[in-house]
Amino acid sequence: MDVFQVTFVNENKTISVKEETTVLEAMRMAGLSADAPCGGMGTCGKCQVKVDGALCLSCQERIEEDITVETLQREKSHRILVSGTKREVPFLPFLSVKNVQIEACRIGESTSDWDRLCLALGGTAKDYEPNLSVLESIARILREHQGKARIVLRGDRILDVRPQGAAPVRMAAFDIGTTTVAGYLLDGESGKELASASSLNPQTEYGADVIMRADYCLKHGSEALADCIRKQLGKLLKELCRKDGCVPEDIFQISIVGNTCMHHLFLGISPDSLVHAPYNPSISCPLILPAKDYGLEIYPFGEILMLPVIAGFVGADTVGCLLAANLEEEEKMTLLIDIGTNGEIVLGNKNRRIACSTAAGPAFEGAKIACGMRGAEGAISHAHLENGKVKCQVIGGGRPAGICGSGLIDVLACLLEAGIVDESGRLEESCPLSEDGSVYLTQKDIREVQLAKAAIAAGIRLLVDKMGISMEEISQVYIAGAFGNYMDPKNACRIGLLPSELEDRIVPVGNAAGEGAKLALQNRDEFARARRLALHTEFLELAALPEFQDCFIDELEFPEQTDAIRQEKRKNGY
Amino acid sequence: MDVFQVTFVNENKTISVKEETTVLEAMRMAGLSADAPCGGMGTCGKCQVKVDGALCLSCQERIEEDITVETLQREKSHRILVSGTKREVPFLPFLSVKNVQIEACRIGESTSDWDRLCLALGGTAKDYEPNLSVLESIARILREHQGKARIVLRGDRILDVRPQGAAPVRMAAFDIGTTTVAGYLLDGESGKELASASSLNPQTEYGADVIMRADYCLKHGSEALADCIRKQLGKLLKELCRKDGCVPEDIFQISIVGNTCMHHLFLGISPDSLVHAPYNPSISCPLILPAKDYGLEIYPFGEILMLPVIAGFVGADTVGCLLAANLEEEEKMTLLIDIGTNGEIVLGNKNRRIACSTAAGPAFEGAKIACGMRGAEGAISHAHLENGKVKCQVIGGGRPAGICGSGLIDVLACLLEAGIVDESGRLEESCPLSEDGSVYLTQKDIREVQLAKAAIAAGIRLLVDKMGISMEEISQVYIAGAFGNYMDPKNACRIGLLPSELEDRIVPVGNAAGEGAKLALQNRDEFARARRLALHTEFLELAALPEFQDCFIDELEFPEQTDAIRQEKRKNGY
Repeated sequence: MDVFQVTFVNENKTISVKEETTVLEAMRMAGLSADAPCGGMGTCGKCQVKVDGALCLSCQERIEEDITVETLQREKSHRILVSGTKREVPFLPFLSVKNVQIEACRIGESTSDWDRLCLALGGTAKDYEPNLSVLESIARILREHQGKARIVLRGDRILDVRPQGAAPVRMAAFDIGTTTVAGYLLDGESGKELASASSLNPQTEYGADVIMRADYCLKHGSEALADCIRKQLGKLLKELCRKDGCVPEDIFQISIVGNTCMHHLFLGISPDSLVHAPYNPSISCPLILPAKDYGLEIYPFGEILMLPVIAGFVGADTVGCLLAANLEEEEKMTLLIDIGTNGEIVLGNKNRRIACSTAAGPAFEGAKIACGMRGAEGAISHAHLENGKVKCQVIGGGRPAGICGSGLIDVLACLLEAGIVDESGRLEESCPLSEDGSVYLTQKDIREVQLAKAAIAAGIRLLVDKMGISMEEISQVYIAGAFGNYMDPKNACRIGLLPSELEDRIVPVGNAAGEGAKLALQNRDEFARARRLALHTEFLELAALPEFQDCFIDELEFPEQTDAIRQEKRKNGY
Repeated sequence: MDVFQVTFVNENKTISVKEETTVLEAMRMAGLSADAPCGGMGTCGKCQVKVDGALCLSCQERIEEDITVETLQREKSHRILVSGTKREVPFLPFLSVKNVQIEACRIGESTSDWDRLCLALGGTAKDYEPNLSVLESIARILREHQGKARIVLRGDRILDVRPQGAAPVRMAAFDIGTTTVAGYLLDGESGKELASASSLNPQTEYGADVIMRADYCLKHGSEALADCIRKQLGKLLKELCRKDGCVPEDIFQISIVGNTCMHHLFLGISPDSLVHAPYNPSISCPLILPAKDYGLEIYPFGEILMLPVIAGFVGADTVGCLLAANLEEEEKMTLLIDIGTNGEIVLGNKNRRIACSTAAGPAFEGAKIACGMRGAEGAISHAHLENGKVKCQVIGGGRPAGICGSGLIDVLACLLEAGIVDESGRLEESCPLSEDGSVYLTQKDIREVQLAKAAIAAGIRLLVDKMGISMEEISQVYIAGAFGNYMDPKNACRIGLLPSELEDRIVPVGNAAGEGAKLALQNRDEFARARRLALHTEFLELAALPEFQDCFIDELEFPEQTDAIRQEKRKNGY
């Protein structure tokens, strides 16, 4: 087998690869980040590069001679939503920090240093559990610091013993999304948020959605994806600490939410069970695990709190949203929708909750759309009709480079209103969205949006049926996630993504999943509440419902008329 | 500073060292085992080597030119006592091994693999705690082995999940003595002993007794000594596994006993508190710790049970003896003596127990004695009078190479009986013990024995006083340890090491400390019992007693006459 040289011009890197290697594989071997949301199937077109000057899809191009590769300029700054509606809870964390005075041992006594430390905490040796680091440091603190110690503990586990006034105690919360990762740094002694940071989920290189990544794991094992996300959390931890002026070793506890697949991949669990019926998770209960087993280089005896998952496709991120929305205590009938790469929907209140997952797909994140892109600079994010023409707003104000989810909804609403697209979704010819025609909407794009919005709309309708209520009985609609935050509620109803009856009750709640992760750190009762929420939220498997197909097909059509007209009709008794 | 070449002739090794390095240091740098029980003070004479053909003490010889070093033949096989009197307990270990059938998940269900595993164990997810390895393996076992799993757990911690019929489950117990280490391999499913192994404690290179080793740690840190003993346990684990045909990864739990200094050094705790008044331990309670934190390469989530210690100089080895002797339930007033490098003595029964430690020193292990050696081939181990002359027995039957502890006692008893040594211990001139006069006993040797036996005898007497009983009220005397096992009870009383009133009640119990370590593995209630024994055994600090000095000086003398004469006297009312 021959070996060829691949030179990456922009990166000034040359590597040797075997014959038949694809350019995409070569990019990964060279350590270059490669965007291939379709998983290298040749369908998304996002992995374009220039090979010896000619444009081609890097995933499809096999290397059969020495080549030069020119990577194309990638999106530079991503608009990832990190903030969410905050719920204030008393600061009552698992982690507690205590400054104590350990008494010296008197002549004639033989009580151990550890016994006296436990006594200073108000207990006996039987009540607490030490670790290697604690055992090694007690004697020194007693000797060199006259027994003035700062103790960090979680329940009966003494995590750390240091001289008073030593380094700060920090905690971090993460929301691992299929596409993006958001991280937060909190103070361990007040719960106050000190910094936030976000990034793309580098697992995207192995496929845009969870199914593609799970498929990759079935073929190649889960190690690469586990390693990939753990390293990314490590990078975000460093960034968070840099912003705060602390170091990762100051972090004693990390909480993590994410959909079930992200949850499993972080833990190194094969997502095998998620790709075969009955799509059950491998583990769903809340977990407290040693951080070092999972490659997170925080305090050596630091811990990870994994929030529980509800089902194979209703994960810990949804539980985080339920926690943030406090659905265990909410009296009002609430609809909670988290539209990410998948769409999870929960309907209920303190008495009963039902959750489902819809295969909405990543259309609203710009994938599978000809000119789709994430909500970054250059994306059409909003649009309105002006004199019968679609007027677009572009993030950053420059020339449009593509269209993101909220833009798609607005443009479609405009096209429906203007009659350019009919109820069935038919579009006569591609619709230009930029002056030069480089950004446009195709018939296929509209079909993708129809599939996505029908999935969510059908999910809502079936949950309402299952709950045995009418749509009007829903008091509030919480929309979580970045797309939900930027989306125009009126237009979301106009295209039938959300029921028009609920238009006036829509409240964007931002990154509610991340807020839930923070709550679990700030108050240990919230972590216990997460367990109850996960355990006592029913899961509705839409695909198993006989009426699902019918309902889904019904929802594929766009609503006939604008709300104004519809309301007029209703008044007249139609 | 100049650099010189040191060539070790027998080992065919040459290293470069800086000027002023001692030959002993050079030997350690070259990875050669060097015996220096006095800690390199130049007093024990055990580190003799030939430098350029001339005998010298390697610890005293500084290198100032290129030299050749000839190491001398060392003792090859050591007689280390590993067996002890066994107490049968029901097999009820911490570790339990269960073969279960995990049900498959049915369509429409979303219970996780882990939930179903917990169900198979008769509980729910809330009742058990998984680890990384368990999380990673459940899915595979369900898929590839139809849910037939073998589960290893400790309480609510699931340590391992494997296909049924996989590798065996083993446990190991260790007794870390100052001079020797004994290890035992047990079956995890029956508690049966499968193999035993022993070695010298390689920490001897840093000093013969705990004080010298503690001093080394104060100057250089505890890492070297911790590392040294952990590695040695690793070697013994390999040897145990080789004998059994298993591998160290099959070992799930290890229990350890040792005196407080050995206990602390294994854990990496500075023995600082043990060398300064009030000589309290840094930690004394029982511990269950992850093996991997302590460099033991057994099953990655395997655990270490550390038995508790009583005081700075009454350690977990003594607690192991108390456990083996079942002193928590014993009705009879019992005297338990463990003569190792130190002498620990416990007096009591189920109602009350008092422990003390005596600085007996390592005389009975052959150290500080001119021709002293451990109980190995060539050692005079026993002696008797024949026609007024001392007749010696040599281990292995050949020419004597030295004298060990049990031999010392017999020889002294003979010399007292023959009037060669008087009550004050005076010896006119060195007494030859071999035909060629190469093995002999000196006046200084007798003084060492006097100091050692007086310390123990005074300890016994003061414990009896403290308990408020008479010597005759003691029903049984358990002698633990190798020396106690080989020692002649009659001669031990003859020289005043033990009270002659107790001569007929002496029972050697072998390595009772090691037996205690095994009991903790075989029955978790025994581990709990060890905690109670440690907590409820009073510690008597001999040095703090005003009467100690008097009593010690009284005991320095040898008893006047033989027991026969003494008993005669008593009858006549003296």
